[in-house]
Amino acid sequence: MPKNKQNDQDRIIEAVPNFAEGRRLDVVDQIVEAICAPGVLLLNRTSDHDHNRTVLTVAGPPAAVVEGLFRAVRSAAAQINLFEQEGVHPRLGATDVVPLVPIKNISLAECAALATTLGARIGQELQLPVYLYEAAATRPERRNLADLRRGQFERLVEEIRLPARAPDFGPAIVGPAGAVIVGARNFLIAYNVFLKSSDVAIAKRISRQIRASNGGLPAVKALGLLVDGQAQVSMNLVDFRQSSIATVFDRIAALAQEQDTEIDRSELIGLMPEEAMRDVVAHYLRLPALPKGRIIENAIDHARNMGM
Amino acid sequence: MPKNKQNDQDRIIEAVPNFAEGRRLDVVDQIVEAICAPGVLLLNRTSDHDHNRTVLTVAGPPAAVVEGLFRAVRSAAAQINLFEQEGVHPRLGATDVVPLVPIKNISLAECAALATTLGARIGQELQLPVYLYEAAATRPERRNLADLRRGQFERLVEEIRLPARAPDFGPAIVGPAGAVIVGARNFLIAYNVFLKSSDVAIAKRISRQIRASNGGLPAVKALGLLVDGQAQVSMNLVDFRQSSIATVFDRIAALAQEQDTEIDRSELIGLMPEEAMRDVVAHYLRLPALPKGRIIENAIDHARNMGM
Repeated sequence: MPKNKQNDQDRIIEAVPNFAEGRRLDVVDQIVEAICAPGVLLLNRTSDHDHNRTVLTVAGPPAAVVEGLFRAVRSAAAQINLFEQEGVHPRLGATDVVPLVPIKNISLAECAALATTLGARIGQELQLPVYLYEAAATRPERRNLADLRRGQFERLVEEIRLPARAPDFGPAIVGPAGAVIVGARNFLIAYNVFLKSSDVAIAKRISRQIRASNGGLPAVKALGLLVDGQAQVSMNLVDFRQSSIATVFDRIAALAQEQDTEIDRSELIGLMPEEAMRDVVAHYLRLPALPKGRIIENAIDHARNMGM
Repeated sequence: MPKNKQNDQDRIIEAVPNFAEGRRLDVVDQIVEAICAPGVLLLNRTSDHDHNRTVLTVAGPPAAVVEGLFRAVRSAAAQINLFEQEGVHPRLGATDVVPLVPIKNISLAECAALATTLGARIGQELQLPVYLYEAAATRPERRNLADLRRGQFERLVEEIRLPARAPDFGPAIVGPAGAVIVGARNFLIAYNVFLKSSDVAIAKRISRQIRASNGGLPAVKALGLLVDGQAQVSMNLVDFRQSSIATVFDRIAALAQEQDTEIDRSELIGLMPEEAMRDVVAHYLRLPALPKGRIIENAIDHARNMGM
């Protein structure tokens, strides 16, 4: 096999597109069928009735995933009418948001470039307004998803002609399929820490102390909750290279101690990247580093890809 | 691709054969060429002049690795004459020892069965005496490699007719290629912990306290050393499922504290399996468990193998 071909197969991105349909499962089936272009792996499919929303998780070589996403956006646009759609979750369009995530042998910047290419194609071929966000954003005020989605579909219908709301690609016209937000972001780790306490005030206080928006740990979003009677610090780690799971755990352990409690256990929601795991191991074992190639499975993969 | 074919490709073993030649590199080249049967990945090759010994690390699907090993044993037997070979390292034959190690989707028992099949073939087709050891041993007194190798090639020439030394396969005759020891064992993690101390006596004391042979931690071999003026506990963890790296680290930390010192850093020699890493992460983050599928790279591999 030529080396380039192998390298292409060894580059992996993930995408987590959100669609504004969680009730008509035959519609979701068609979107799923569309997204499964050759080479695309469907990792997860979750539809929520109240939110009226479906989240798909797919992965694979960049070109395959981007092709699958384009087909899924086309399928969703043909089947979902935002003038009729209702649900608890905010949305701008039939395909509400499409984040691309670097997984293997690809950078965030390369994913942003892929998002831009995909956005341009959606604008041109499907004639839908497209906004680029996060690492692919064209303006600072478009980085944040919540800002882009403010007022939702209904307000966008009224405001799309305003210069501030001019789409990055496609026409400044909102049809029944609404607009699509496309971008690139780092892998998000959803991680919760339970305290040996039933006092939610402690969890809320610790959350305020660690969250990035209050000047705490970079790239950490945190909320204090009471879950089954137990105080929990619920987090999204939006860039584990800035604040690793180990850093977050240790900081919470120290803050809990100051408040006369301690960590009971923690939980990972969904998936985490292998690199985040190596960070944790290197930290606690005081290893100067733990490069990828020191894991036997990775060494084997590497030898295989080198054609050794 | 048919599913069985994929499953076979997804089973991986490692083998670490040792050959009694570390000086004539053209001989080693031929052994390396022989071992690289289709599908076999060469991960490492190390030749030592004083030991007059070469250690190869290969991995791949079981059938491919076993075929490569057979060819390598045949090549070594044709080129190395133990009546002339000299070196610091003890050895029984041209191919001294062949351990098979389970890596992925295969058990230690299955590796022991592969070792038995390989041993039988070496005995029959190459007419060499073969001893099975560790998980493949046919008698308790043959489990330990050092016991099997006692007196080396030279004494085996005199003793092979004794019932206690009857080979498991092949003739009870020692020719120039000597005998081959074949078996299966778990992945061995070579792991060292440096103390903030230059007193080797502390490292020696801790080593005695933790080593399995003194009633310490199961499956742990330990030595106290002075390395570049720093006290070091040098270990082989021969079954990380019995004593994980985290268990060993924590025990050493506690024992060091009792002796008024502490851990400075640790180091991994060579490779470790991904599972051993997940154990460490689950331990320090107090996760109830961290199954393989929660790592995004593994989830992608799994989806790929399921043909999703």
